[in-house]
Order: sequence, then C-alpha cells, then structure tokens
Amino acid sequence: MDYLKRQEKLYTWMETEELSLVMLQDNEERRDTSILWLTGHPGDALLFLSSDKKALLVPWDINIAKLYAACDFMVPFAEYALDPISTLVSAARYFKIPMSGKIEIPSCTPYPDFLQYVDKIPDYDIICRKDGAKSEIERLRMIKDEDEIHIYRVLSTLTNQIIDAIEQNVCNGQLKTETDVAIFIEYEARKLNCEGTGFTTLAAGAERSFGIHAFPPYTAAPFAGQGLSILDFGIVFHGYTSDVTMTFARGPLSKSQETFLGLISKAFDLAFSKVKDGAMCRTIAQSVDTLFKKSKISMPHGLGHGIGLQAHEAPFLRSRADNEWKLAPGMIFTIEPGLYHPFEGGCRFENDILLTENGAEILTRSKIVRL
Amino acid sequence: MDYLKRQEKLYTWMETEELSLVMLQDNEERRDTSILWLTGHPGDALLFLSSDKKALLVPWDINIAKLYAACDFMVPFAEYALDPISTLVSAARYFKIPMSGKIEIPSCTPYPDFLQYVDKIPDYDIICRKDGAKSEIERLRMIKDEDEIHIYRVLSTLTNQIIDAIEQNVCNGQLKTETDVAIFIEYEARKLNCEGTGFTTLAAGAERSFGIHAFPPYTAAPFAGQGLSILDFGIVFHGYTSDVTMTFARGPLSKSQETFLGLISKAFDLAFSKVKDGAMCRTIAQSVDTLFKKSKISMPHGLGHGIGLQAHEAPFLRSRADNEWKLAPGMIFTIEPGLYHPFEGGCRFENDILLTENGAEILTRSKIVRL
Repeated sequence: MDYLKRQEKLYTWMETEELSLVMLQDNEERRDTSILWLTGHPGDALLFLSSDKKALLVPWDINIAKLYAACDFMVPFAEYALDPISTLVSAARYFKIPMSGKIEIPSCTPYPDFLQYVDKIPDYDIICRKDGAKSEIERLRMIKDEDEIHIYRVLSTLTNQIIDAIEQNVCNGQLKTETDVAIFIEYEARKLNCEGTGFTTLAAGAERSFGIHAFPPYTAAPFAGQGLSILDFGIVFHGYTSDVTMTFARGPLSKSQETFLGLISKAFDLAFSKVKDGAMCRTIAQSVDTLFKKSKISMPHGLGHGIGLQAHEAPFLRSRADNEWKLAPGMIFTIEPGLYHPFEGGCRFENDILLTENGAEILTRSKIVRL
Repeated sequence: MDYLKRQEKLYTWMETEELSLVMLQDNEERRDTSILWLTGHPGDALLFLSSDKKALLVPWDINIAKLYAACDFMVPFAEYALDPISTLVSAARYFKIPMSGKIEIPSCTPYPDFLQYVDKIPDYDIICRKDGAKSEIERLRMIKDEDEIHIYRVLSTLTNQIIDAIEQNVCNGQLKTETDVAIFIEYEARKLNCEGTGFTTLAAGAERSFGIHAFPPYTAAPFAGQGLSILDFGIVFHGYTSDVTMTFARGPLSKSQETFLGLISKAFDLAFSKVKDGAMCRTIAQSVDTLFKKSKISMPHGLGHGIGLQAHEAPFLRSRADNEWKLAPGMIFTIEPGLYHPFEGGCRFENDILLTENGAEILTRSKIVRL
C-alpha cells in the first residue's frame, strides 16, 4: 500500500483547512481504522500529522509498529504513561506548533474529555468537529484505489471458494451445527492465507434466525434444519474484509417463508439495478422499503454499507431522510435485504458490489441454498 | 439475574442526582454493556430510565429484545428511524418530563453530537459528564453479587478444564498451529455450554510472541516451537468472561528468556501477595514496575483489570499517578505480568483473582508450560 500517498492527501487537506496538527486515536473504547489506513499500523495508537508533513506515531505496542507502520517518527505510548492529553502536549512541542495554532482532535472525543483538552491545553486552538479529519479520511477511503480493487478481486474469489465449500459441506451433512459452520470458515480462511474473519460469524439455525444478528453468534445448535437458517460472514485479506450472507432454506417451507425468500431476491435485484454513478443511496434503500411495504412487511436494518478495512464504512445505503451519500466509481459496498419474523424465522441475502467507470459488478456469489 | 434490583439501584442514585431521565446507548461505534447489565438485552439499543422508575428499551432487534430484556416498555428503534436524538425527544414526551428537567445522555457522547442534542432539545437540561450514570454503573458492576460470583466459580472450572486440555494436546502434538489452538478453544467452549470466547484468542508462536497482542491474532504458523509462545484467551458463560494467558516455553531457552519467565512468575506472586481489601491498585502495579526496573526491563501494559460482562472493566491495576482504584470484596480481576522483546519473544502469565471478605483467591489455573 502507498501509505505516504495517503498521508500526502491528508496534508493537502490540512493546508486548505489551515490546521497545524491533526491527532487521531485508535483504542479499545473507540476503534478508528484511520491509523491503519494511513500508516499500516494495526493496533492501538495515537497518530499526529503536522503541517510540515511529518507523521508521528505513538503506538501501544512498539514492536508491532516497527514491523508494520509507515511514519516519520515513533515513540512508545508508555513513555507518556498512556495519557492522550500529555501525549498531545508533547507532540505539539515536538512539532513546534505556534501559539494559537489550530489542532484538531478526534471527532469522537467525548464532550467531558473535550473540556479537559481545552482546559489543559489553553495555548492552542483545539478543534473537534464532525466534518473534520476523520470525515475527510472516510471520504477518501470510500473510493478504493487500484491496489484495493485488486485485493477485493482476490478476496472475492477466496470468499466464493468458501461459499461453495460451505454449500457442499452443509448439503452432504459434514457441517451439522452452527459451530461446525463458523469454525469451518475460520479454518478455511487461514488455509487460503487470509488473516481471519472480518467480524464474528453469525450462524443462526432455523430456531434462531428470527434475530437480525443472532445471539449468541453461533452455538452447538443444528444448522440448516427445516425452515430458514442464516449465515453471515466475511474473511479478511490484506486487512480488507468481505461481507456476505447466505440463507439455507430446508423445506417444506410455509407460505410466509416462501414469500420472504421471494421478496429478498427481488429486493436485491431491484437495488442492484439502481446501482450507478451518482445514484443516491437513500433512493435505492427507499425503493426496497416500498417493495416490502406492498407486502405489508418491513426491514429492520439498513439495505447495505461500504466495506473496506472495516466491516461497516461509508457509503451507507439507508433510507433515512438525512442520508446524503451518493454512489461513485471505486466504491465497494454490500446489498443485503433481510426479513425476520419471530415464528417463521429470518432470511438475508447479501453480496458485495463494485462500482467502476464501466458499471456495477457483483463480486461475491452468495446464494439462497434450497435443501 | 435480578435485573430489576439493578435498575432499582440506579433509580435510587438518580434520585440523589435529581435526574428526570437517564439515556444509555449501546451501538457498534460505542459499545456499552451497561444495558446488558441492567436489562439482559444483549444487542444494540437505547435505554431510558425515568425518575418514576420505569425503563423503556429501544432495541435495534425487537425479536431478540423480547426474548432477553427485562424492562417496562419496548419500542423498536426503527420506529424512530434509528435516530437517537428524536428517540430521546419521544422518550421525554412519553415520560412527561417537565420542562427544564435534567436529562443525562451517555458520557461518551462526542462533543459535536453533544452540541446537536443541546441545539435540538432546548427545553431540557441536557447533561453529559464523566462522573454520571455510566460511571455509577461501572462502580456498581465492579462489586460482583452472589449470583455473579457463582457464575465465576463455574466459569473458572470450565476455563481450567480447557487450560488442562490445551496443555495436554499441545504436549502430545495434537495442536500444532496457532489456528489449531484457537479453534480448539472455540469448539471446547461451546461443548461446555459456554456462549463462546470473550475476545479474539491471541495465539502467538515463538516467532510472533514479541507483540503484546499478536497481529494477526492467530495464523497458520506453528505454535509452541522453540522459544516462548503466548496464548491469551477467555470463555463466556452467562455473559461473563474469563481471561487467562498461558506461556509455552520450549527449550533450549536463552538466558534472557529464562530471566523473563522467572520475572513474570515472581511479579505475579508479588502482586497477588498485595491483594487485600483497601489495597490501592496503583501501589500493586508500581511494586511490579519496581521489580522489573531492578532487572532494567519494563512492562509495556497494565498489570491487570476487572473482568465481567466485558473483558476489560474497572478496577484497573495500572501504575499511572491518577489511578485511584482500590480493591474491595466482590471484585474479580486479572493479574497479568508480561515481558516482550523483539528478538527473544515474549511471555505473559495471567490468572483471574477473586477478593472476598475471606481474602484473595486465584480462580484460574493458567500456567507456564515447559516443553
């Protein structure tokens, strides 16, 4: 990955915003993959980007950082007693930020913490805003570059291999329980040189598929028994995750179950037919809402979301009135209509979509498997 | 679990704080297990607690909530278009909160979001503070009740069974790779009727144990080869997680590796000897720092932390000057000294400790396994 090019893009943005310093933070309480995207460092850290185009990484684990991170300077977080505010003070001194210089801290900084920053660092202009660095990085990340699209082509092939293997092994009775299926994915992913799964696999047999996200995610219960079973998973390759959902339908099915399956297939096709450069994400999601409404049913979650270093990132395909995301070439996102009923169970059909200058493409081959 | 009793405790606290309404939120961006602790609901949701002692849950997944949640009222989040601010407005109306009533929103609310709340809800006194409801719940959760201690006794027995099985199967060569070991735990946990693992298992063979938290967490690489290998895992029973770390040491070891192993054992014993009612967590952590310093080495992470519904919760055994946590009966926490070197590799020894009126007890039997 060309991390320096990514950092360069942010420096350019900082110039137009007249920022002296930008601070980003990735920690357990508030995960932020921006640091991973900008430097390649995969763990807890603070990152400081200065107006003289230098990047200072302050990682929790210096040994991991030395292996992975592309940056100009590196100091272990322990040297600042793991305290973000005093780390920021040191960084500002290190970069000789002029008095009253504009320093942007993470947009997710809690209000009580923000007050502390302002109180303890009175010499600088501390900025915390929604439409700041994080949001700029989100916009940049939304459009995948050639390297990332290449990764997704490989990743999709690997995901499809696993989809096929799961179908085969569920059908031939090798994979019997939710745990069998989930563990099979963990193993297969690593055999294919993937880093693992992108999120906890959700394997919900017919008794538990009524939940959007089954709880617990998978159990020793049978998978793919009579009725509807849901399998939602993603695998990770070079940091990037796929995200697909298969539904296993074992007959005899009820009339409602058949209706649900028909509707989610139709919804997927309808949504995909509207994928093009400039399309409003809201409009696509609303068209699916309308389709479901005709059958007096509704979907309790969004229609889809961008994927990348995170399982959920921009753009978001939601029908909320304030959703202003528009599709553009380079975006990779899911379409995942789903319907759920406390007694009939649930079903979801999810694939990963790539939009390029040449049009839309379904990368993954998830399916509704009839048994 | 007696969820109503927990809610009652919070209502009592709300009274002394003169709060009309408390809002809590658990979502992907900011996980908060307070809602799980207060109601048993295991997924994304908003929870409103009113001064007339009623709890309104607004879950993302109504089907899951109906199965798990103890509360007075329930409305699907989709009815408010998944928008927290308009949900809060509706809740305030529903509970007939008087004008200028004090409404506390989550302490982790980002500063830019806080401004929106205040802007869009001018009729109420919106409070967002560090020492508020979340922190009160944290204090309450820190002291485990009889039911929770019982769960931990069972959970520790199950964890110990898995520890023994891992030792046996690594020693006899059945578990060869990091993935073998990690997957073995996933399977065994579910066989023992556990919900799964409490966090991603970290299995780092000798080539990768230099990292505090190996990245990726586990791979197809060999485990327990010559040198030091680390295995950090926890299993979940009735929502509660254990957290243990084993080190596998296969000789011949270098002098430094032997020194590391000796030091972490000694550090564990030293720390445990200081565990008693009223002990300052900072002092315990600092005593280990001092021990390591004598050997001119330092530990890049905290000495331990509370466990419960989360893998990391209060109290925190850290040596930072601002750490004011004190030990008290009912606390369950880890002690986990670890040392790491880019070439020699790393080792960590972690067990779960219970402090009762009768003194301290090591619940788990993690070990340094010599091969």
